[in-house]
Amino acid sequence: MDEPTKQIVIPAGFRFAGVHCGLKRNPNKEDISLIVCDSPATAAGVYTTNKVFAAPVRWDRARTPSDKIRAVITNSGNANACTGPQGEKDCAEMAAIVAEQIGAAADEVLVMSTGIIGVHLPMEKIRHGIAAAAGQTGVEAPAFLEAARGILTTDNGIKIASRTAEIDGRTFKISGMCKGAGMIAPNMATMLGIVLTDAPLSTEQTQTLLRDVAEETFNCIRVDGHMSTNDTLLMLASGAEGGAPLTDSQVAQLRHELKAACEEMAKLIPADGEGATHLIKVDVEGCATREDAKKIAIEVADSPLVKTAITGGDPNWGRIVSAVGYAGVTFDPLKLELRLNDILLYQTGTPVKFDAKTVSHSIKGSFETHVQLTLFEGDASARIWASDLTVEYVKFNADYST
Amino acid sequence: MDEPTKQIVIPAGFRFAGVHCGLKRNPNKEDISLIVCDSPATAAGVYTTNKVFAAPVRWDRARTPSDKIRAVITNSGNANACTGPQGEKDCAEMAAIVAEQIGAAADEVLVMSTGIIGVHLPMEKIRHGIAAAAGQTGVEAPAFLEAARGILTTDNGIKIASRTAEIDGRTFKISGMCKGAGMIAPNMATMLGIVLTDAPLSTEQTQTLLRDVAEETFNCIRVDGHMSTNDTLLMLASGAEGGAPLTDSQVAQLRHELKAACEEMAKLIPADGEGATHLIKVDVEGCATREDAKKIAIEVADSPLVKTAITGGDPNWGRIVSAVGYAGVTFDPLKLELRLNDILLYQTGTPVKFDAKTVSHSIKGSFETHVQLTLFEGDASARIWASDLTVEYVKFNADYST
Repeated sequence: MDEPTKQIVIPAGFRFAGVHCGLKRNPNKEDISLIVCDSPATAAGVYTTNKVFAAPVRWDRARTPSDKIRAVITNSGNANACTGPQGEKDCAEMAAIVAEQIGAAADEVLVMSTGIIGVHLPMEKIRHGIAAAAGQTGVEAPAFLEAARGILTTDNGIKIASRTAEIDGRTFKISGMCKGAGMIAPNMATMLGIVLTDAPLSTEQTQTLLRDVAEETFNCIRVDGHMSTNDTLLMLASGAEGGAPLTDSQVAQLRHELKAACEEMAKLIPADGEGATHLIKVDVEGCATREDAKKIAIEVADSPLVKTAITGGDPNWGRIVSAVGYAGVTFDPLKLELRLNDILLYQTGTPVKFDAKTVSHSIKGSFETHVQLTLFEGDASARIWASDLTVEYVKFNADYST
Repeated sequence: MDEPTKQIVIPAGFRFAGVHCGLKRNPNKEDISLIVCDSPATAAGVYTTNKVFAAPVRWDRARTPSDKIRAVITNSGNANACTGPQGEKDCAEMAAIVAEQIGAAADEVLVMSTGIIGVHLPMEKIRHGIAAAAGQTGVEAPAFLEAARGILTTDNGIKIASRTAEIDGRTFKISGMCKGAGMIAPNMATMLGIVLTDAPLSTEQTQTLLRDVAEETFNCIRVDGHMSTNDTLLMLASGAEGGAPLTDSQVAQLRHELKAACEEMAKLIPADGEGATHLIKVDVEGCATREDAKKIAIEVADSPLVKTAITGGDPNWGRIVSAVGYAGVTFDPLKLELRLNDILLYQTGTPVKFDAKTVSHSIKGSFETHVQLTLFEGDASARIWASDLTVEYVKFNADYST
């Protein structure tokens, strides 16, 4: 596991602001987040595959990839989802207000929303909020942190990561922010994320980088398996580092640090999952294809019986092995091996003698639990990070009332 | 909803016994269940599709459909799953002991097991148990009830149903028993079921009837979405009613009552789901195919956010609509309609005004909650019954320790 970010680095070419405009009840909590690019940035997006998706997802999807993005505006507290034609209109107006404030076109502004579903945006508050944010953007860490707080809903704290890539004597900065505590929290929707760099990247490079890195990071986290209507991950490259466009080999090096930053952020989401007491790392190895490995890892990570076993510190290998069996993947059960926190529990179709107390203590003694499955069917692998399932999750989601 | 069975009818040609042999700690709880057929019965089976399956599943799968089944032996308290070659040997021995006791061949005996995974059967206890059961079989209700208790694990009570089919002046009896409270309960596996009739059916008729009826009943229930290693549903037709073989049209009439009996039993499983406070009936209508409808119903029924909303009596339509959206089915979100307990909540892509208190009271005031989704994409439909998700479910599965 990588060390958490010790220091925030701010990629050149971006300005930040976060303000409170009244979407959240607590006046000390930012609910508008604005990121402005000094010059047109290349931008890419990956979005929820939910057939029921929010207005801002439709807006951004139609405008990415792009080489002329000037801003990203995010509101928290209201998802602008299931809001019909009025929702589309409100989303377009959010972009238009930002555009007017910064001297750009509405088409050059991306929008994200997260919060309650099925309620129209209070546009009067949002108009004031955007104007206030546009008037106070900054390039230092405090402004970045305001913007990172402005996208949160039920999160317990900001989720950010930074990396620096030294490539052929040049220095590229990468920083990102994300949010999410349930795939859908109580009537609050969404995983949102933005990753920024000052590297000069083409539109195609930006889109390919984001798609590849998202598949291995943000697409590998599970809280409750319930896909949101608003999930959005954006990447903006300002090019403000100032040098020549990156070669393919330089992009590959940048990708390494980009993935590290996204992985660090992505893991923060299930770690902060509603009621979570464990972060479960599921590694599935030796599969015929990565798709097979991911299917198995997801079934294990989503099983409420596996999740509750880990909550209870119970090395209940039968629940894990049986979840592997119903993932829809062909494999030889007699070759399957299972390790939990590096201790062998299952091999050759039969249980292995192990000290249950030692395994139980290793689960109870650490926030992270490592489930390792090996199938010996090929070379492909996948890793999923997930929350466990606790009484607090159920209370949080059952006791809440709309 | 059908009325529960008022009276047990015992199909002719079968004898029953249930005894305690020491697999369960409580000496008052039967853990061996025996059903003997006076003459060879036609028999069919449907089984778990889990790649990791127990020894008795392998045994029965190889021996059904059949026209010569003489007995079904079931033990509860031990699943004989993940037990390797010794498990296969123990399963074969169970069949052989029964065969010896009743004067049949081992191949004419089907076997079911349910309980702890990965522990070898205590065969000495089982040998004594089978001998005792074989020595005390009866044809009346008390013997049937002993056998129905002998297959239970964490169930709160027996799960049985009976029907009588009057067809062309003849009377056919149908009775069944099943068990299950979690797809896998704490280290206890499985849904098991047996349905019996005295109708004279061919092997093919028996297999087709069971496969079709299972698809619409036992395959439409969800507790926690975790598929067991031992799921087995058997059907035996003794032919002891004594008349001529049934025509296709007579089989269709029998099917109606058979389905009613299986539906009544199947619903008892999620209704008795671990910690369940609601039975959720999810109806999805107006789909292009039944497969589409079932996919959507399963995603809604499996979503922990939908389950917990119903636990809390919260008419949180956003959670239901968003679960429809990620089922992998193509549809127009603007046409989707949602009713909860017959009250319209969502239509034309926007929320409908409704009295949240009325809906909440209707959820809280009844054990059964009805979720009705209409897609207007075609004529196919599906119905799923599911448990809600409660604090008690999590406690039960997290606090248990192997």
